[in-house]
Amino acid sequence: MRYFHNDYNAMCHPAVLKKMQEAEKISMPGYGTDEICRKAAERVRQLCGDDGLAVHFLVGGTQANMTVIDGALRAHQGVLSADSGHINVHETGAVEATGHKVLTLPATEGKINAAQVAAYMENHLSDGDKEHTVQPKMVYISQSTEWGTVYSLQELTALSEVCKKYGLYLFADGARLGYALTATDSDVTLGDMARLTDVFYIGMTKCGALFGETVVISNPALQEDFRYVIKQHGGMLAKGWLLGLQFEALFENDLYFEITRNANAQADILRSTLEKLGYKLYISGKTNQVFPILPAALLEEISDAVTFSPMEWVDPQHRVVRFCTSWATTEEDVKFLCQLLTKHTK
Amino acid sequence: MRYFHNDYNAMCHPAVLKKMQEAEKISMPGYGTDEICRKAAERVRQLCGDDGLAVHFLVGGTQANMTVIDGALRAHQGVLSADSGHINVHETGAVEATGHKVLTLPATEGKINAAQVAAYMENHLSDGDKEHTVQPKMVYISQSTEWGTVYSLQELTALSEVCKKYGLYLFADGARLGYALTATDSDVTLGDMARLTDVFYIGMTKCGALFGETVVISNPALQEDFRYVIKQHGGMLAKGWLLGLQFEALFENDLYFEITRNANAQADILRSTLEKLGYKLYISGKTNQVFPILPAALLEEISDAVTFSPMEWVDPQHRVVRFCTSWATTEEDVKFLCQLLTKHTK
Amino acid sequence: MRYFHNDYNAMCHPAVLKKMQEAEKISMPGYGTDEICRKAAERVRQLCGDDGLAVHFLVGGTQANMTVIDGALRAHQGVLSADSGHINVHETGAVEATGHKVLTLPATEGKINAAQVAAYMENHLSDGDKEHTVQPKMVYISQSTEWGTVYSLQELTALSEVCKKYGLYLFADGARLGYALTATDSDVTLGDMARLTDVFYIGMTKCGALFGETVVISNPALQEDFRYVIKQHGGMLAKGWLLGLQFEALFENDLYFEITRNANAQADILRSTLEKLGYKLYISGKTNQVFPILPAALLEEISDAVTFSPMEWVDPQHRVVRFCTSWATTEEDVKFLCQLLTKHTK
Amino acid sequence: MRYFHNDYNAMCHPAVLKKMQEAEKISMPGYGTDEICRKAAERVRQLCGDDGLAVHFLVGGTQANMTVIDGALRAHQGVLSADSGHINVHETGAVEATGHKVLTLPATEGKINAAQVAAYMENHLSDGDKEHTVQPKMVYISQSTEWGTVYSLQELTALSEVCKKYGLYLFADGARLGYALTATDSDVTLGDMARLTDVFYIGMTKCGALFGETVVISNPALQEDFRYVIKQHGGMLAKGWLLGLQFEALFENDLYFEITRNANAQADILRSTLEKLGYKLYISGKTNQVFPILPAALLEEISDAVTFSPMEWVDPQHRVVRFCTSWATTEEDVKFLCQLLTKHTK
Repeated sequence: MRYFHNDYNAMCHPAVLKKMQEAEKISMPGYGTDEICRKAAERVRQLCGDDGLAVHFLVGGTQANMTVIDGALRAHQGVLSADSGHINVHETGAVEATGHKVLTLPATEGKINAAQVAAYMENHLSDGDKEHTVQPKMVYISQSTEWGTVYSLQELTALSEVCKKYGLYLFADGARLGYALTATDSDVTLGDMARLTDVFYIGMTKCGALFGETVVISNPALQEDFRYVIKQHGGMLAKGWLLGLQFEALFENDLYFEITRNANAQADILRSTLEKLGYKLYISGKTNQVFPILPAALLEEISDAVTFSPMEWVDPQHRVVRFCTSWATTEEDVKFLCQLLTKHTK
Repeated sequence: MRYFHNDYNAMCHPAVLKKMQEAEKISMPGYGTDEICRKAAERVRQLCGDDGLAVHFLVGGTQANMTVIDGALRAHQGVLSADSGHINVHETGAVEATGHKVLTLPATEGKINAAQVAAYMENHLSDGDKEHTVQPKMVYISQSTEWGTVYSLQELTALSEVCKKYGLYLFADGARLGYALTATDSDVTLGDMARLTDVFYIGMTKCGALFGETVVISNPALQEDFRYVIKQHGGMLAKGWLLGLQFEALFENDLYFEITRNANAQADILRSTLEKLGYKLYISGKTNQVFPILPAALLEEISDAVTFSPMEWVDPQHRVVRFCTSWATTEEDVKFLCQLLTKHTK
Repeated sequence: MRYFHNDYNAMCHPAVLKKMQEAEKISMPGYGTDEICRKAAERVRQLCGDDGLAVHFLVGGTQANMTVIDGALRAHQGVLSADSGHINVHETGAVEATGHKVLTLPATEGKINAAQVAAYMENHLSDGDKEHTVQPKMVYISQSTEWGTVYSLQELTALSEVCKKYGLYLFADGARLGYALTATDSDVTLGDMARLTDVFYIGMTKCGALFGETVVISNPALQEDFRYVIKQHGGMLAKGWLLGLQFEALFENDLYFEITRNANAQADILRSTLEKLGYKLYISGKTNQVFPILPAALLEEISDAVTFSPMEWVDPQHRVVRFCTSWATTEEDVKFLCQLLTKHTK
Repeated sequence: MRYFHNDYNAMCHPAVLKKMQEAEKISMPGYGTDEICRKAAERVRQLCGDDGLAVHFLVGGTQANMTVIDGALRAHQGVLSADSGHINVHETGAVEATGHKVLTLPATEGKINAAQVAAYMENHLSDGDKEHTVQPKMVYISQSTEWGTVYSLQELTALSEVCKKYGLYLFADGARLGYALTATDSDVTLGDMARLTDVFYIGMTKCGALFGETVVISNPALQEDFRYVIKQHGGMLAKGWLLGLQFEALFENDLYFEITRNANAQADILRSTLEKLGYKLYISGKTNQVFPILPAALLEEISDAVTFSPMEWVDPQHRVVRFCTSWATTEEDVKFLCQLLTKHTK
């Protein structure tokens, strides 16, 4: 069986486990106050080119999202998100559980744009009864999105500007940031992310680690007391150095970028095979998630040999599915999948 | 330097890391729905002698506490706890953040008893305005407690009975359960824990793992929908099998019990040395936490060679301190500490 | 100036104030435990024909909504609502502030139907990752809706059945229940409301009182401990008898039905005038809210003489507006408005 | 029967109901945006001598407390309170329901002092693991307290200074503020309250109104967006002018001060009678709440003729009870009670 159903079904890049073995004998202070995390945070500041960044290591994405959002917002404030955004769809209401409404904007290929935000804010501000509605105070985006698309530098800049104009925080969920930064159609750097958002995170769970998301905060208002907020939300790992260690392993010699770039390349191979075979892609992105529309019969036939995620039906005979590559996907895996698709296409 | 400041400053027992290395090539479904977790849960049911138990693997203690408590209580209900209880003192209000008040009872050596619970309930129920106060619905205890003491089978049984009488859930925080079950003065088994509580957890972070707490739920009302509750509270680990793997490593050949028993034995050695040297113990427990009252001058002298946790002052010259042993503490470590204490005692 | 901008801009029906004056010398126990509230609750049970109903008097609608919903749901559960529902749009996230997500269904003229609920539930239940999404546990409807439409007995019955089938609570916001029950196109009675929902309320603020909403709970699971929930949500009025008094005033000699029926009749007059003048109604209901599409120029011209609520633009020259009648609207008021509209229509 | 069990068992001062009758024909914009509330707010600013105050009218005390506290605090912050404070004891965890822990200090006669606050803060700030505990950010006091005592100008000034020093907000619950400001042993004015706190409220429910608490905010950080916070917490009364009207009625010709001063005078008469009869007062205050220690036998004998609130037992034969006077208590009422006590004292 070859695995394409998600990008977190394998353990971790060998460099990560190796780093943990080397550390087998250490004794460290707890809760991320150790030297390894300190150095990893320093490395983040270098990579982003900003000495003023606050860096915190959390275990998972939902945890990072609820912690960042609840830490930033006052009681009556909400967060704008694409309707397809992870916080709106796939976190069992974790953000609402902290008391804040997710305010949705209709997404296009998983993305929202500055004009939508501006229109929402103008509408809110012009409402004579605006205090009867949730006050928008943050914009949440995913880079790359849940549909594998990437915000360009121009799009990000526009969002950043509209947020500044209306006093909104811009927060980027970077669970798949590695794949976003290394896509062939991407012109955004880690430094851009730090410069254009108030807070974002560098996803590790889906990009080669066992677990971990590196939260990077540039806005001083959001930096204040963030460790209290982490602890309160159950996100402070006792052996916090495990997160710093994994960051270190992934960012030595740019491994993080290398392995995510390769996953994108494998996805590109799959995309061109699908197109050659005459299948339409439901979504246009260049990252590690591929969303073709395929015949249900074909899906039936290949499901013994490869895994994938079924999505919506476009008609009774055709369905969108997701194939994910990852840092763990080999050329051989993708070749196998392409041959399989070719074989089952009449 | 020898480390006694807490019981989570070292990586993990070698068997844990070995198990992870062996699994380096696996591909698994996410979020704890894998075969490894399934088998580990089965093993928990065997160890506890109860086929009806629900078993879930969470990452950390604060997370486990807030998830169990918020999952069990309705909006207007609160949880009774020793005033020294972890949820009351050291979780940055994580339980209150889920909307529930922690109702405190004065602890004796970290413990509360059935009579206190009964008195609280009688007082609540006799209050004509009882709906103006929080409705108690759960009793939270720690086994072993934050002060290293252990609830005996008789004490646990009495608490269990009083909870049943008043319709309260009994929840045991088992972050240090290994140390509690193997103390020389303990007569409680894993099966007793499952039988006498509605929900408890088997601590792994402080007992040999990298991280992880195994939540065991016997009350069917609390079993229902627990996975939703985990996810909502940010506690569902993407690569959930990492938790199952660690459980497996710790419970092969009773390793969990062996290593925690040894930690207690090392603590016993330290306790008898302290007593021989004429120092008083602030607390009487037989687990891995030792709380002597020591001269400030001595503490100053030994602080270059060993770590420990300073607690309250009993007078301007004397202070309670905590020495923790753990699964990682060697005989040599304790011998070193004992000699050091002896040397610095006139 | 004549007032049609909402149905709560006047004090109260004279019978209400009279009842309060008559009570000027009473002394009562607090928090709704008085004899007046007891009798009013008894009267509700009579009117609904169900001895088992629990009845509670709250001050306002948002308060009633958040209290009922948070009191009923466990942490991970959410409430299905029309996207136009009051809880989703106009309560500043009060429901989310209690931790629960509002799950929206697209409304048709303010209403949702049983088929939509069934489809949502089937989709949820068939989702392999359903615990990554909020668990729907309640359906919230408004009777009459925010757009002045009324659920028919058949529609209510279908909703009730689908809720029972899927284990959902059915909750009806009755802020405008008086207008709903007395509309000429309505076939629903107070008894039907009690029989077909798990909980609903009889709106008083918008139907002749100074303030007050009478919450009626038929489901025993939701009855339990409801006074705790009220108090916790800040909704327990110290001088609770003020609510019972107002209920009594409104339900003597069916005053409540008489005054709301009259408001509907006034609205019907306005609707037929509008149609005669050739204006389209945006929405078809027969209750006290009238939503014509009017020329912006005309609105400009009449705004010195009457008040109304502007809604969305249908094109740059035409806008939906809301005219509300109420228990306080006189025949003369409506005649004035109709003449004004006629005069300004070319 | 004469009523002394609380200070909110009677309707309202006749001036209040008269004011409402006079307004019977008004039409007003909703939610407190009306002219009556605007003028009442202006009057508050005059009375306090501060043009910069924000003024909001809420319905009840628990509602005011939870709204002010949740509106002011970030997620990880808590509020310091006397252990006897209303928010800690008698609000069914309303503050915790908004996510914030109530941090208690042991009270002396219902009061806490600046030194206690300073000690708490020094301890918190010196804790190396302070982010594992709730961050104190507000001090809550009641003026007068739940035990009828009053903070003097010196005590309030000291609290204000310690709060400024440690960056804490000072919030005074003024449910019984009228009684506090007019006690013979009180040297605090309304202006002092506004000057020395960040936010406080002028209690109306217990001081002559049907309901209502006037929240006065001097700190600009807490003023921002307060109407959103009110609405979200279910506290925005549709017919908001009812609150402004009542304020107006109570503050015409200083009626508020006159009627509360009279209540205190009646309580003073009761206190001296009790002392003459040889009974001890459990608490020393000079406001409208009187807490004698009385023989259980006597309480039994008088309970047919007067109401009172039983409190704790001091021994099996003696109990603390509370007698409340109020704006509604007449000289005759107190004379009756004093004669009754005299008669039943051997």
